[in-house]
Amino acid sequence: MLFLNAKFIDLDLGENAVIVNEEDLKGTSYYPQDRVLIESHAGSVIGNIYSTKTMVQKGEVGMLVSELAEISISEGEEVKLRHAEKPESIPFIKKKMDGQVLNPHEIRTIIDEIVSKKLSNIELSAFVSSTYINGMNMDEIGEMTKRIAETGDMISWEKNLVVDIHSIGGVPGNKYALLSIPILAAAGITIPKTSSRAITSPAGTADVMEVLTNVELKEDEIKRIVKTTNGCLVWGGGVNLAPADDIIINVERPVSIDPQPQLLASVMAKKIATGIKYTVIDIPVGKGVKIKNEAEGAKLARKFIELGELLNIKVECVLTYGGQPLGRAIGPALEAKEAIEALQDPKNAPKSLIEKALSLAGILLELGGAAQIGEGQNLAWEILESGRALEKFNQIIIEQGGTPKKPEEIELGDYIEEIIAPIDGYVTDINNTGITNVVKEAGAPRDKKAGLLLNSKIGNKVKKGDVLYTIYSGSEERLVSAVNLARRVYPVKVEGMLIERISKF
Amino acid sequence: MLFLNAKFIDLDLGENAVIVNEEDLKGTSYYPQDRVLIESHAGSVIGNIYSTKTMVQKGEVGMLVSELAEISISEGEEVKLRHAEKPESIPFIKKKMDGQVLNPHEIRTIIDEIVSKKLSNIELSAFVSSTYINGMNMDEIGEMTKRIAETGDMISWEKNLVVDIHSIGGVPGNKYALLSIPILAAAGITIPKTSSRAITSPAGTADVMEVLTNVELKEDEIKRIVKTTNGCLVWGGGVNLAPADDIIINVERPVSIDPQPQLLASVMAKKIATGIKYTVIDIPVGKGVKIKNEAEGAKLARKFIELGELLNIKVECVLTYGGQPLGRAIGPALEAKEAIEALQDPKNAPKSLIEKALSLAGILLELGGAAQIGEGQNLAWEILESGRALEKFNQIIIEQGGTPKKPEEIELGDYIEEIIAPIDGYVTDINNTGITNVVKEAGAPRDKKAGLLLNSKIGNKVKKGDVLYTIYSGSEERLVSAVNLARRVYPVKVEGMLIERISKF
Repeated sequence: MLFLNAKFIDLDLGENAVIVNEEDLKGTSYYPQDRVLIESHAGSVIGNIYSTKTMVQKGEVGMLVSELAEISISEGEEVKLRHAEKPESIPFIKKKMDGQVLNPHEIRTIIDEIVSKKLSNIELSAFVSSTYINGMNMDEIGEMTKRIAETGDMISWEKNLVVDIHSIGGVPGNKYALLSIPILAAAGITIPKTSSRAITSPAGTADVMEVLTNVELKEDEIKRIVKTTNGCLVWGGGVNLAPADDIIINVERPVSIDPQPQLLASVMAKKIATGIKYTVIDIPVGKGVKIKNEAEGAKLARKFIELGELLNIKVECVLTYGGQPLGRAIGPALEAKEAIEALQDPKNAPKSLIEKALSLAGILLELGGAAQIGEGQNLAWEILESGRALEKFNQIIIEQGGTPKKPEEIELGDYIEEIIAPIDGYVTDINNTGITNVVKEAGAPRDKKAGLLLNSKIGNKVKKGDVLYTIYSGSEERLVSAVNLARRVYPVKVEGMLIERISKF
Repeated sequence: MLFLNAKFIDLDLGENAVIVNEEDLKGTSYYPQDRVLIESHAGSVIGNIYSTKTMVQKGEVGMLVSELAEISISEGEEVKLRHAEKPESIPFIKKKMDGQVLNPHEIRTIIDEIVSKKLSNIELSAFVSSTYINGMNMDEIGEMTKRIAETGDMISWEKNLVVDIHSIGGVPGNKYALLSIPILAAAGITIPKTSSRAITSPAGTADVMEVLTNVELKEDEIKRIVKTTNGCLVWGGGVNLAPADDIIINVERPVSIDPQPQLLASVMAKKIATGIKYTVIDIPVGKGVKIKNEAEGAKLARKFIELGELLNIKVECVLTYGGQPLGRAIGPALEAKEAIEALQDPKNAPKSLIEKALSLAGILLELGGAAQIGEGQNLAWEILESGRALEKFNQIIIEQGGTPKKPEEIELGDYIEEIIAPIDGYVTDINNTGITNVVKEAGAPRDKKAGLLLNSKIGNKVKKGDVLYTIYSGSEERLVSAVNLARRVYPVKVEGMLIERISKF
């Protein structure tokens, strides 16, 4: 055991850490990177040892501010370090690596230790890799989903019919929720929409909404807003919903894997945690999105429905076309602008955006009893076209703490470059991944003013010199970088009708 | 891109890191834990960003001393940070996760990026997990082995017959090499033995040898010593042999996996790197070691031989009994003492130690042409019994920079506790894992004086009150802790002949 005096260290290592003088480790059984339990009179916390010659003196232990808070001590007070026991879930992770089925206790232990940060990134990556490779059966997924929800905050509602729309993502420009939610809320349907910020995309729904209003709200604020307006469009991370999910995502991202058990659990755990009883899940299908073809989409849809049954949540899935961006705008500010324009003047809005927003809203209008079967889309259009959706949207913006803006009031990046068609021809492809990368290179999602506006979409005829799309950025350097990338990856492809000329046999 | 002035940060995070002021990250596309390329006029290095409010000022970047050295700059000089490209090997890791076979280029890329620290622990853990679950074929293992060797130092020898003995470990007290190596060297056989320090055991051969002499030697010193004495007993880590191996081991340990492809590659890469042309691999079999039964041992043996053929290294495997500790002493100082005693007076040494040392030496004596087939063990005994092995051992100790010691000159822990038999009976089991954990709890391998001396071994008759074993430690606190553990795990089991009495049907 080591007895050391706590010293505050201002460093965010993304994990619990304690910094100990090399001299204090010599001749002990404590090594750098050992996992230790740090105990005070008031509690204990787990962390990894890192060593220094000078950052803390002999007899001191450098601790992060969050750790000091967790065990309620101040600088200078004594703490006790001792070897932390190996996480209880290690043999269960090993079991999944060996291709076995985990029982409910084992799954709950793994999730609990993820949330309490007892598992290191190495251990967590081994778990995620093994579920990716060996899979999980529906009982395992159901148990994991429930536990991911239970280990965070749970919101409950007085009303019974609380609905939700969820996209499993991958389509750039996917801002339809800014239309669908107010349409539904205007029809009296309760739809407390929590969304994520961008993970790998240039703009999550929360990022887009944040251009217009506050999205970081606490549970009681969300409840008040939904009570007043029937809906909301907030960031899920403002509430402690399914915290295991974010931790798991952090180890999936570097290797670009998204194991299906985790995907299913991630989506449905947030439904449980937000008290949703009915959800429509939008599965975009196409090149450059998660799901490449309809058969794959249908298979995933069946799994969502099966899992929903286990969890007492009614799930309906829709496969939507995801082969090119939705609408013309990609990037937080541009998407917010396009959404408001569509709410103001839906007849002149991009057809793909309107169609998706209406069809998803339509399903829920029918389910919610606001429209007859087969009449949902028509009612949705009526609400949109009459301006009631815009009115509701503005009400939500105000309740969340913002001020409604006109489209022209939304600030876009000052650094702009137009990319023009190199030849006469047709737009034969718009590459989702290419578009995403260019917009991220321009600075999105952190730079909300960064984005890309498409002038043409697949099938459109263009003349040499026509503007194909415009890139926006808040920084000159990043604009240059995005333009360079665009010139390399060529995300909007123009081809003449003549594809190839063969002159010799 | 961020332009910042380097500041030295004295912290060992076990990875490359740069510490940036929060303010400098705001509004940029750089987030904490992003992987960046840090460039100077003289080179570049990859590291992860961590953020602070105060540890470095705005405009500064905290860098570790090793990073400053790598790009040849001093404190205060300007460096450029930009997003590092995703490691080239990510899609190859993904491919292995998807159960596919990797081609030589893909394997080499993964190993190269492990060595250049381009892969994070998360990514590395995903790779190791996927090879554990999906395996590798012999061509993949061969390629991996070669690359692990090539990316480190390679020692070559003038002589052609350079031999080696290697244990795949797991048996506490496994100090036989301190006998076998001098026997072989005394017979004129070239055997430059590099060993590891303890990874999960209480004492690696290098830890034991370090009680007696210097084991951290450079390549030219090793060559000189082997030229003079025919042998050596040094730590492999003193030379930059197969550096990928250590990095891989670091992510295997937390999850307690040792994928067979990595095990095979780890052993054989070090043989390539040390210029070994012939090796005997000792595979201990039994309860509490890596290989549980003979069938499993034989299977592994065949793989070692097959891999050896691919690599032009002749491999012979022996399965040895590993069901209890070898000899009576466990822990660096105690093992060194037992080895010297055995060299001085082999007739009174533990039979298990003598037998293993002789049989392994015997095989190599026959192969090396020093003994007729079937005569190796006899010759080994002759060399041992005549004192020539001890003489050679002392010569090696001197050449490595030490002074030969008498057994009684070896310092043992001052804090000692004898554990006595609770009943009359027989020792029915000595649990390898239990022994290992008790000795580690007492402070080994770092505390070289910590250890455990068995008074009885399996099958011995004991009387109530007899000393079963003695625990040594350099610290009173750790002795108490080890004794407490011993009382819980009961590593030496004594049972009467009467196992169970059944009085009712």
